Amino acid sequence: MKSFGSDNHSGVHADVLAAIHEANAGHEPAYGADAVTAKARQLFQNTFGPDAEVFFVFTGTAANTLAIRGLCHPFEAVVATSCAHLNEDECGAPEFVAGNKILSFPPVDGKLALDVIDRLKINPSDPHRVVPKLVTLTQATELGTVYSLSELRAITERAHARGLLVHMDGARLANAAVHLGCELGDVTTAVGVDALSFGGTKNGLLCAEALVFLKEDLSPSFAFMRKQSMQLASKMRYLSCQFIPYLQDQLWKKNATQANAMALYLRDRLTQLPGVEIPYPTQANEVFAILPPAIGKHMQVQARAYAWDGALHRFVCSFDTTRADVDELFKGL
Amino acid sequence: MKSFGSDNHSGVHADVLAAIHEANAGHEPAYGADAVTAKARQLFQNTFGPDAEVFFVFTGTAANTLAIRGLCHPFEAVVATSCAHLNEDECGAPEFVAGNKILSFPPVDGKLALDVIDRLKINPSDPHRVVPKLVTLTQATELGTVYSLSELRAITERAHARGLLVHMDGARLANAAVHLGCELGDVTTAVGVDALSFGGTKNGLLCAEALVFLKEDLSPSFAFMRKQSMQLASKMRYLSCQFIPYLQDQLWKKNATQANAMALYLRDRLTQLPGVEIPYPTQANEVFAILPPAIGKHMQVQARAYAWDGALHRFVCSFDTTRADVDELFKGL
Amino acid sequence: MKSFGSDNHSGVHADVLAAIHEANAGHEPAYGADAVTAKARQLFQNTFGPDAEVFFVFTGTAANTLAIRGLCHPFEAVVATSCAHLNEDECGAPEFVAGNKILSFPPVDGKLALDVIDRLKINPSDPHRVVPKLVTLTQATELGTVYSLSELRAITERAHARGLLVHMDGARLANAAVHLGCELGDVTTAVGVDALSFGGTKNGLLCAEALVFLKEDLSPSFAFMRKQSMQLASKMRYLSCQFIPYLQDQLWKKNATQANAMALYLRDRLTQLPGVEIPYPTQANEVFAILPPAIGKHMQVQARAYAWDGALHRFVCSFDTTRADVDELFKGL
Amino acid sequence: MKSFGSDNHSGVHADVLAAIHEANAGHEPAYGADAVTAKARQLFQNTFGPDAEVFFVFTGTAANTLAIRGLCHPFEAVVATSCAHLNEDECGAPEFVAGNKILSFPPVDGKLALDVIDRLKINPSDPHRVVPKLVTLTQATELGTVYSLSELRAITERAHARGLLVHMDGARLANAAVHLGCELGDVTTAVGVDALSFGGTKNGLLCAEALVFLKEDLSPSFAFMRKQSMQLASKMRYLSCQFIPYLQDQLWKKNATQANAMALYLRDRLTQLPGVEIPYPTQANEVFAILPPAIGKHMQVQARAYAWDGALHRFVCSFDTTRADVDELFKGL
Repeated sequence: MKSFGSDNHSGVHADVLAAIHEANAGHEPAYGADAVTAKARQLFQNTFGPDAEVFFVFTGTAANTLAIRGLCHPFEAVVATSCAHLNEDECGAPEFVAGNKILSFPPVDGKLALDVIDRLKINPSDPHRVVPKLVTLTQATELGTVYSLSELRAITERAHARGLLVHMDGARLANAAVHLGCELGDVTTAVGVDALSFGGTKNGLLCAEALVFLKEDLSPSFAFMRKQSMQLASKMRYLSCQFIPYLQDQLWKKNATQANAMALYLRDRLTQLPGVEIPYPTQANEVFAILPPAIGKHMQVQARAYAWDGALHRFVCSFDTTRADVDELFKGL
Repeated sequence: MKSFGSDNHSGVHADVLAAIHEANAGHEPAYGADAVTAKARQLFQNTFGPDAEVFFVFTGTAANTLAIRGLCHPFEAVVATSCAHLNEDECGAPEFVAGNKILSFPPVDGKLALDVIDRLKINPSDPHRVVPKLVTLTQATELGTVYSLSELRAITERAHARGLLVHMDGARLANAAVHLGCELGDVTTAVGVDALSFGGTKNGLLCAEALVFLKEDLSPSFAFMRKQSMQLASKMRYLSCQFIPYLQDQLWKKNATQANAMALYLRDRLTQLPGVEIPYPTQANEVFAILPPAIGKHMQVQARAYAWDGALHRFVCSFDTTRADVDELFKGL
Repeated sequence: MKSFGSDNHSGVHADVLAAIHEANAGHEPAYGADAVTAKARQLFQNTFGPDAEVFFVFTGTAANTLAIRGLCHPFEAVVATSCAHLNEDECGAPEFVAGNKILSFPPVDGKLALDVIDRLKINPSDPHRVVPKLVTLTQATELGTVYSLSELRAITERAHARGLLVHMDGARLANAAVHLGCELGDVTTAVGVDALSFGGTKNGLLCAEALVFLKEDLSPSFAFMRKQSMQLASKMRYLSCQFIPYLQDQLWKKNATQANAMALYLRDRLTQLPGVEIPYPTQANEVFAILPPAIGKHMQVQARAYAWDGALHRFVCSFDTTRADVDELFKGL
Repeated sequence: MKSFGSDNHSGVHADVLAAIHEANAGHEPAYGADAVTAKARQLFQNTFGPDAEVFFVFTGTAANTLAIRGLCHPFEAVVATSCAHLNEDECGAPEFVAGNKILSFPPVDGKLALDVIDRLKINPSDPHRVVPKLVTLTQATELGTVYSLSELRAITERAHARGLLVHMDGARLANAAVHLGCELGDVTTAVGVDALSFGGTKNGLLCAEALVFLKEDLSPSFAFMRKQSMQLASKMRYLSCQFIPYLQDQLWKKNATQANAMALYLRDRLTQLPGVEIPYPTQANEVFAILPPAIGKHMQVQARAYAWDGALHRFVCSFDTTRADVDELFKGL
């Protein structure tokens, strides 16, 4: 039985395992000085532009937290929605590891409101207050919605105009790009994003995330920060190789297309149930639904649906979720 | 051509890849609540005793650094040899992440001298000085030597008598145990070690290290510390599964036996060269040799031997190093 | 001309300077092992109860931040109003020094709403989220209001019932106690507060703040934390002596009585001006007033009134503010 | 009875108390925007050169630790003698607050050997190791010796040639300058020192230390770092005013001259006792003496002499130590 509890309940795509097998040929230099990693690095530049500098790390928590460490002094602040993963779900890693304060704001459909940026108090000569420095956006958002390209452009422009950098938490970037019908570079570099946490693990990789600086010289000493933050893989090729089919063969697109389609299908089926309310647009691979108690209980058991907040439940579809898996959920209702 | 530059130049053992394939069956709960991880956990208790509590992490740096975070207040100090990996080769991760001072002492054949512990100034009522709390030993040492069981027992006894805990950096514990002809529990739990960084990556795993608390209740909140320190794997089963063949089928022993044997063979061949001096006993999978310039140069090119300090070179044998690989090094000399 | 910009624009009370002179007699042991500090310590116990353990520090930022360090693991969270000084005005010191996340909530008249505590999600087995551990209250609040004793009792009871500790930021505790007509112990220890930042500098001391643990064994290693956090005074007697007239002779009460009275008088005068609105009760030594532009400008120049937020201005009265000083503000209007 | 246990057992010089009285006139802006602090700042520039930027802090621990925070990334290392105060006596504050590793080396007569700098491994492209960045010297040293101007020039030249900055812990800089017969600028700015912890508390101030950046733009965001590190005084004028007589009237020189003279006198008297050995030159206000047991005991009781290490005792003379005080020590021997 498939789980709809999270996309990290799913396993590893066969092409990724094949890439690991292929990487497992003889001895190679450690710490990223190998040919496989060089190839993966090149693919990141093909995807995100020639200035993209990629650092592979082990978790999304690390990618997000180290983006902050890499781009901010500890007395500078991060601007986020209150529901952002790095604000709510990383056990305070940004505060502990990087020492920064996160200024959080209520989301609108999961998104950061544009006027939050305009209203920020930024006073570079008042040492009593942290200085906003980095705006972080989650794409797709924690609520399964997707910023449009024009929304993103508006935010990065305003942020840059106020001297702020923009980070994107792309744990589910593939799902967002599929929804927008665009390539990965279109939704990041092309709209002015400065740094990206590019997720793979939730979309069929074994364990691989990437922190990508999209512009030159954003964090010149970052190699030291990654190591000092315990995120430098010795046998790097086994991390980097996972991104080869992911980017070269557009596995990201194939996987996300399936997951998104299943989310829409699931949403359709849910709306046919009596008393179910869908509070947010379904634009990626997550469906949020307010469920009557009996249905809620059923779905928690059957689908491992996550009781997000009272009657509000979250369902997440994975790269390997099928129509039959969705149909299965509704049996016995 | 095999590399003798480091044991993390080698790849992944076929049994480990097989275990990953086997783990890749359908959906499983994330973050360690899966059956594969439960099995691996049980194997750790079989190996290290019923009180062993294991936390899988991504790197040796993390295992070592988080042992400190888990066991010490930031004002408590770590006692180590100056050549300890966590003192020299982790870019200051212990200081940065955990905030602790490391008190380092010159090694004797790579080992911490027993009287270092006796001479420590420990004054729990003088807030001007850090309070020694954790002795860390590297087994096998950074210089390829191995503490005997009685040496270990002497150190843990003295340390405990002074109120100190003992941590073992076991990045190459398998090689040490093979040298001693004992099981993994004999060289850790049985001799009084409190916490262990148990390495796998250097001995044929893909990417998996474990921090193991060997006694009860040593760090009751450690699950939070691991997450906040960015070391909680979402798809945990792919880390934990690697330890199943490693412990269940004693792959650790098979792999280390080969690596150690090749180190001895390499040492023999080196001693037959004119002007070569071997400064330390060869007890694990590392050979240190003072080489005449021409031979040094040859070995740096041919074997990726690491120029440790001037004429002193380090050779590391891996689980898949063969006699033919060793013989190859001497061609053209 | 007196300033109404802040109570730390005022100087040092003559009795405090006298105490410093008196303390300046010959040589004394450093770091708090002196007779003057012993006497001050005894006065804290007389005031706050026999379990009170006082640590003198240099700033309110330090008292607040080190209360967190002393009482929480870094993965535990602090619950505060968004306007709390430690959330807004300490440049992220709690996050940087102690590593903790602050969960902030919109204040009601400057106070933390009781139901905030009830609605906290506290899950000691979910390592993805910080665990609320410490509720911090500011008394008097940043908006010049004062928690009643029953409000405090209600909060500490609910907090304790949920396993939380309660810290009070008492930078202006004297002003609050005077408003309530009670003694310092009544508004802290007696209502269940666990730890107190007891301010002196804003009420006539030269430079002296105190972190007071009001119950036994709350932070047994705190002496080390203070030193490691750079807050251990060598010539301690010159800090501690300031509290001798402050507590022994109730200088706190005399000074705060004057400041509070002047705030009420200022408020009265302000309300007589056309178009002035007073949004909060005036219960301590601060007056908040929404001023018409011309009056606002006048008061910024004349009184150094602080433009808090748009037309909202803050006036702070000090221990040495007089009716004549207040009257002076209104000249030329 | 005067204490020879430490120079922070002594009190406050009358001129300093007078300066505090004088500063206590009416209301002044807080946080350093006052006229007294402006004057003190000017005196620092007069003393240390026009590029000197001074930040007043509360303790020597803070001055030293924040020099590191201000000048180094956390992955950069500090080079110090093992006996340096910031290595041994600050409870790990540099590691905890700034996150940096200190590389410590055995001192020669309390001093850092010049060849330590030459032998440092500095590899800006190896992220496994911390990168040495800041050399710190203690002047006068912890063992009461003084670097000559040419020794200092040699160290700063070599350090700068290797891309390192030089910090001076000047907790007893006044004593060193008096010994050298030079002005404060001669022994700091003129010999190439980059940043200075300038101590006052040990030489007659009440509580005032200064971190001085001696060259332009060394730490452009330091104002934020000081606040975030809990070292920004609200009523700054009471810190800064202490330096007015100290620098303007050369109180530093007068006080240190007396203390140094008394150290030499004490040394002379000690050498007349049987079995006493003086292992280091007496160049500042500290005398180290290896004492026979009976004399040691006597001196611990009589003089509060500090048992430094076995029979080695430390005596510290203060600005108010007199010949009669010294003579008193020898009564009853």
